[in-house]
Amino acid sequence: MSSSTRDIEEGLAFTPKFDADGLLTAVVTDARSGDLLMVAHMNAEAVVKTIETGEAWYYSRSRKKLWKKGESSGHVQRVIELRVDCDQDALWLKVEQLGSGACHTGRRSCFYRAAPLGQKGAVRLEFRDAEKTFDPSAVYKTS
Amino acid sequence: MSSSTRDIEEGLAFTPKFDADGLLTAVVTDARSGDLLMVAHMNAEAVVKTIETGEAWYYSRSRKKLWKKGESSGHVQRVIELRVDCDQDALWLKVEQLGSGACHTGRRSCFYRAAPLGQKGAVRLEFRDAEKTFDPSAVYKTS
Repeated sequence: MSSSTRDIEEGLAFTPKFDADGLLTAVVTDARSGDLLMVAHMNAEAVVKTIETGEAWYYSRSRKKLWKKGESSGHVQRVIELRVDCDQDALWLKVEQLGSGACHTGRRSCFYRAAPLGQKGAVRLEFRDAEKTFDPSAVYKTS
Repeated sequence: MSSSTRDIEEGLAFTPKFDADGLLTAVVTDARSGDLLMVAHMNAEAVVKTIETGEAWYYSRSRKKLWKKGESSGHVQRVIELRVDCDQDALWLKVEQLGSGACHTGRRSCFYRAAPLGQKGAVRLEFRDAEKTFDPSAVYKTS
């Protein structure tokens, strides 16, 4: 193992590894239920703002901008714990999700469909925990 | 909302959205504890093999090859449930982790360090659940 690999994996210096686009992956779970709420991306500024404020900031690849979760919806995420993985290219945010949900479709979690296992050919998804907890058209007002 | 966005978000056709490198993000949690074990990537072949076999296959960006989790270590992941997110560019695998851990560093989870919140400046990580559950040098034999 090279000394730099050892530092990254076993050290206590926080040296996040951003990809070619300057991003890393953020996995966001509900601190109470443990359920996966969403997967997002962070640039360096989002990481700094999240650590400094204790609220979740991300980088939107589609809108090409920094955003604070809840800035439109009010559904802010209070970060209870922030962890980094072995090679420091992914973060795990355990959050208290304020408001009714994390998903822009109006659901608590973005992961509301399952793929059946053990079969070949075309996959037909099944809804799981897919009930809507808020009305996205009322929450995300387009100006 | 365009009809294609509606199909992707509200439909039951599984149409995974791979990035420019042909990959999507796979978030892997322990089906019993709910803990995040690892974050990995899948290409189309890894997705198909995971669905068909019910065991986790990934794509290694560093080794540029398809790999079955546990092929070296024996630490196979039995997939209990496979979910897809709203825009179908991320998967959530709830797995039964066989063997002593998911992380190549010898730990159960890759997320064994936390960043303290609410502070400015350089971040010093803290170990959390960082005890090693197996000896990686004994498990990953280099040929």
